[in-house]
Amino acid sequence: MIVVMKPDATQEQINHVVALVHEYGLKDHVICGTDRTVIACLGDKRAVDKGAIENAPMVEKIVPILAPYKMASLEVKKDKTQILIGPERFPLGGTKIGVIAGPCAVESRQQILQTARQAKAAGCIGLRGGAFKPRSSPYSFQGLGKEGLKLLAEAREETQLAVVTEVIGLEQVDEVAEMADVIQIGARNMQHFPLLEAVGKSQKPVLLKRGMSATLDEFLLAAEYIINAGNPNVILCERGIRTFESYVRNTLPLAIIPALRERTHLPVVIDPSHGTGHAYMVPSMCLAAVAAGADGLILECHPDPERAASDGAQSVTPDLLKELMKKIQKVALAVDRQA
Amino acid sequence: MIVVMKPDATQEQINHVVALVHEYGLKDHVICGTDRTVIACLGDKRAVDKGAIENAPMVEKIVPILAPYKMASLEVKKDKTQILIGPERFPLGGTKIGVIAGPCAVESRQQILQTARQAKAAGCIGLRGGAFKPRSSPYSFQGLGKEGLKLLAEAREETQLAVVTEVIGLEQVDEVAEMADVIQIGARNMQHFPLLEAVGKSQKPVLLKRGMSATLDEFLLAAEYIINAGNPNVILCERGIRTFESYVRNTLPLAIIPALRERTHLPVVIDPSHGTGHAYMVPSMCLAAVAAGADGLILECHPDPERAASDGAQSVTPDLLKELMKKIQKVALAVDRQA
Amino acid sequence: MIVVMKPDATQEQINHVVALVHEYGLKDHVICGTDRTVIACLGDKRAVDKGAIENAPMVEKIVPILAPYKMASLEVKKDKTQILIGPERFPLGGTKIGVIAGPCAVESRQQILQTARQAKAAGCIGLRGGAFKPRSSPYSFQGLGKEGLKLLAEAREETQLAVVTEVIGLEQVDEVAEMADVIQIGARNMQHFPLLEAVGKSQKPVLLKRGMSATLDEFLLAAEYIINAGNPNVILCERGIRTFESYVRNTLPLAIIPALRERTHLPVVIDPSHGTGHAYMVPSMCLAAVAAGADGLILECHPDPERAASDGAQSVTPDLLKELMKKIQKVALAVDRQA
Amino acid sequence: MIVVMKPDATQEQINHVVALVHEYGLKDHVICGTDRTVIACLGDKRAVDKGAIENAPMVEKIVPILAPYKMASLEVKKDKTQILIGPERFPLGGTKIGVIAGPCAVESRQQILQTARQAKAAGCIGLRGGAFKPRSSPYSFQGLGKEGLKLLAEAREETQLAVVTEVIGLEQVDEVAEMADVIQIGARNMQHFPLLEAVGKSQKPVLLKRGMSATLDEFLLAAEYIINAGNPNVILCERGIRTFESYVRNTLPLAIIPALRERTHLPVVIDPSHGTGHAYMVPSMCLAAVAAGADGLILECHPDPERAASDGAQSVTPDLLKELMKKIQKVALAVDRQA
Repeated sequence: MIVVMKPDATQEQINHVVALVHEYGLKDHVICGTDRTVIACLGDKRAVDKGAIENAPMVEKIVPILAPYKMASLEVKKDKTQILIGPERFPLGGTKIGVIAGPCAVESRQQILQTARQAKAAGCIGLRGGAFKPRSSPYSFQGLGKEGLKLLAEAREETQLAVVTEVIGLEQVDEVAEMADVIQIGARNMQHFPLLEAVGKSQKPVLLKRGMSATLDEFLLAAEYIINAGNPNVILCERGIRTFESYVRNTLPLAIIPALRERTHLPVVIDPSHGTGHAYMVPSMCLAAVAAGADGLILECHPDPERAASDGAQSVTPDLLKELMKKIQKVALAVDRQA
Repeated sequence: MIVVMKPDATQEQINHVVALVHEYGLKDHVICGTDRTVIACLGDKRAVDKGAIENAPMVEKIVPILAPYKMASLEVKKDKTQILIGPERFPLGGTKIGVIAGPCAVESRQQILQTARQAKAAGCIGLRGGAFKPRSSPYSFQGLGKEGLKLLAEAREETQLAVVTEVIGLEQVDEVAEMADVIQIGARNMQHFPLLEAVGKSQKPVLLKRGMSATLDEFLLAAEYIINAGNPNVILCERGIRTFESYVRNTLPLAIIPALRERTHLPVVIDPSHGTGHAYMVPSMCLAAVAAGADGLILECHPDPERAASDGAQSVTPDLLKELMKKIQKVALAVDRQA
Repeated sequence: MIVVMKPDATQEQINHVVALVHEYGLKDHVICGTDRTVIACLGDKRAVDKGAIENAPMVEKIVPILAPYKMASLEVKKDKTQILIGPERFPLGGTKIGVIAGPCAVESRQQILQTARQAKAAGCIGLRGGAFKPRSSPYSFQGLGKEGLKLLAEAREETQLAVVTEVIGLEQVDEVAEMADVIQIGARNMQHFPLLEAVGKSQKPVLLKRGMSATLDEFLLAAEYIINAGNPNVILCERGIRTFESYVRNTLPLAIIPALRERTHLPVVIDPSHGTGHAYMVPSMCLAAVAAGADGLILECHPDPERAASDGAQSVTPDLLKELMKKIQKVALAVDRQA
Repeated sequence: MIVVMKPDATQEQINHVVALVHEYGLKDHVICGTDRTVIACLGDKRAVDKGAIENAPMVEKIVPILAPYKMASLEVKKDKTQILIGPERFPLGGTKIGVIAGPCAVESRQQILQTARQAKAAGCIGLRGGAFKPRSSPYSFQGLGKEGLKLLAEAREETQLAVVTEVIGLEQVDEVAEMADVIQIGARNMQHFPLLEAVGKSQKPVLLKRGMSATLDEFLLAAEYIINAGNPNVILCERGIRTFESYVRNTLPLAIIPALRERTHLPVVIDPSHGTGHAYMVPSMCLAAVAAGADGLILECHPDPERAASDGAQSVTPDLLKELMKKIQKVALAVDRQA
């Protein structure tokens, strides 16, 4: 952490800050520049609330130097983490790109089984489907609940696909953790810290979606909560951010793929369905994500999008998925990977 | 809801959409314009997933017409809601502006009692203070928990200030609802729907903070969740949004005050501390909020901001609060209100 | 400027950066922390392209310390700049708040004269009105051009209001500078650097609108261009920024008022018309801006907004302006100013 | 355009709006829904200022239906536009992907010639390089001006690469148009309308960069200005948008590629250098853009990025460019194109 003093700071004011820095258990290193004085603070500064010092007189700003996360960082673990998922123990984070597909919500036995079969046939390694749905409106379809979990289990048994499903409340963690192959934390819950700690007590892989306005540090700190609670199997998922753009539901910032690769060992999965909001954009964003180095994709697929209970606009059909998987495989090979 | 067809849509494709509209229980009204056909859909469309229809062939876009919330809207209740809070039953949403002050987190008995006394003396009507803290980093101070609640109760007993404190998990709802005068739902939990439903089962007033990238509709739908669950006592709180601006922690969009007034009967409170992130900006934003028509303010006040365990940078001292309250009172009078 | 090295940087790599720092005419100060090495660079670093050094091996990031502007800053000039505008030499930036009103565009003699008279009667000190209009669409009304300038001059002669009008191209600078009392640089031209330099060669006051996604530094650097070219009479105008919010045309970030006060001596004017996009929000945002410390307001006023050639949605009528001015005066007094 | 009335609008108020609609030369179509009345307005509504009607009593909102651009749209021209650029008349917008590389600014004869030779050898079809530079700070390097143009011409003569260079003011249009193969309009000038009209009078291809907070409609309307002035040879270039993200200089929204493909016939080029701001992200974003369907890439390449006068952080070396081109070619083939 570096404290930048205002130009007219007196020696007394500088001393005051230095004393504060010592109080926080840090060593100081004062540098008098031509225009202003800066105080470098040495030590492990992750736990200090930088704002406190900002309030001292004549402090202009505080500049953090260290990343605030540890266990999620490359500093602690340099080799990429591979996470084995599903009955077939697919190694996510390795050379092969894992594609997970399925409806926004489990709606019926036929819907989920049909989708699962077609996803499997197309070459997917996982099946997504919500049993508990977080919905913006209290009047929207809220999911089938436990019944949905059972249908997912049935689909897995038949297809051997890894089941990815969301947990939205603490009270469901146990049953979801028991049933699912991958527990999904949705974007709205990325900073629901008690939930992060709860899934951190499981050993099931967790697909952690980035909040729609989370910074990179906040995203990795959310992962850190899970790892810190005991579960190292965290999969990072970018699903688009909220910006001024209105031709998309969210803006999909694919540069996060190389940015995460620079900072963390955790696998990175892209969700082009929420990341765009429109089915016609999903194929090109799948290919772009693979070309950019994603370890996996999670996309919405529904046998009858016009009648989907949710997210119809961004769901592709199983037939389109089949075609798309062939293209994904070609692009994967072009970047020395497989799908 | 209005469905806009693409220019080259055939009659068959239009008929297909009309049939879908009927399936969703809506009546259609087809208008053939010079460049394209639009289909107005009549009926209560709140429960329909608009995306489903967007996926039909040759649909260009779907334009919603109705606001998605009901009970929070002026259509259902035209007069402003007043909510009585605290031991002195202060009517928030009336002519008088209620100011709530206190530290980010309860840190010690002395800290909270001293702040409460000075806030009361300055003319505040409520005391804020977190016992359970949602923190971006697992390594940051997480609050005193139940002990913090007890200290808040003691401060209330002495000062008669209304206690406003946050609930971050379902398992704390009962004890917080019992102890607090106003239950706070933090910005990160604005779309934690099970939590909204849980506080909706209480009758205690709820201070609902806008999520940092929530739209107006999402904000009012979160209020709708609480009202729909049985609790009409919702106070809307703007605390700043995430934008590209970096000289503030968040951008405080005060135009939300007239915007909410046009749409809802619920009282509106502004948080200039999180809304800016810097103590030196708090006074002018308090005055601006009052001039713009806010019903209340909630701000962070700490007896020793340089040593605050959290949010030191945006906390004002009790002495500054005292001066500020005088200015707030003057501006309130200038807009025909009192503080 | 501070260069932060990656954790595993070797001594050779650190030496390489130090050599680069010297090449750029700066002195180095190397600090070896517990986790990584940082290199503080001393000297006047404003002219160095920080990116260059970022590209050296094992550099993690570059942190600028100095503000990039000089003459616009409080470091160079501590007392607030007052700028005398119009025939009556109103001192903008002093105790009195100057309100400028008028239509988006000059449309006709009657329209501009009527508006000018009513604005004067209401207590305004300036008349806005575009003769040359930058319009998003080539098919929209583009302004009356020179004819518009003449009508503005006539309105000034009758009312003694200061005329504020926009220049959108280099070829108009001379005639606009000759005729106008205040030359407006629109938001879209905030980084049209040749235009900034051109108005910098005049001595006429310049109202510089912040670009809709400009940072504070970029805004002040645009002012710096004008001052650096020889014209110190720059008025900073906030007119709203582009964010994800859709209930407003732009989000009006009033915290920029205290933020600018901390950094610059230049007067600050708020445009609540573009800053919201909706006439019903304009009154409360005027009052809020005054309460927050603005030196002036510029708002759109049209005698018949339903038939305005542009910006009808955000224009208030002269009758509403009259009422509004009374409220503005009351709030101004409450913050120890006048309007 | 559709006018949505508020719930309590009277028949008289509806009639008032209908009369206004007629005044604007449109036909009305009134639909009385269950909750509110909407008025569909038929006719070519592109030239109407929708805001005007919003100001009528009891109007809730105005919903535009038609896209505001014409000549840039697929409605007017269904087949993709191919634009022949440079001495070798490369068909941009066809099957082959055109890669343009070069420094941010022309700095010296050796720098630009060396870069051009290596870019040519790597398989690029164009050379970028600024002679006139728009710089945020008046103290930064502003380009070599006319001397820079001469050096670019020399590089073209030797390599036959198409020269792409920026024009920042009206007074340079003629000389840049004469010398360059492609005239670049920078992001800051996307809404500098007189400049758009000036390059619209040339027949030289124009590379139009999207403004950093421009909407899709504004982007296409800027292209419309150029086409409307007589020059159909417009190349659309996405270079990243401004968002809350801070790990990148700009957020690169690649979903704009399919979005533009749905709306316009113009070729689309991606700038991953400005689109990320960091050289280490450039390769993966090049591959992603190609996979997503871009027609071309424009990227910054400098023989000595550590000493670049501008944009060093986002420039790749010629050696890296050579490796990257091979990867681009592989991904291009995987999506049935060539590079």
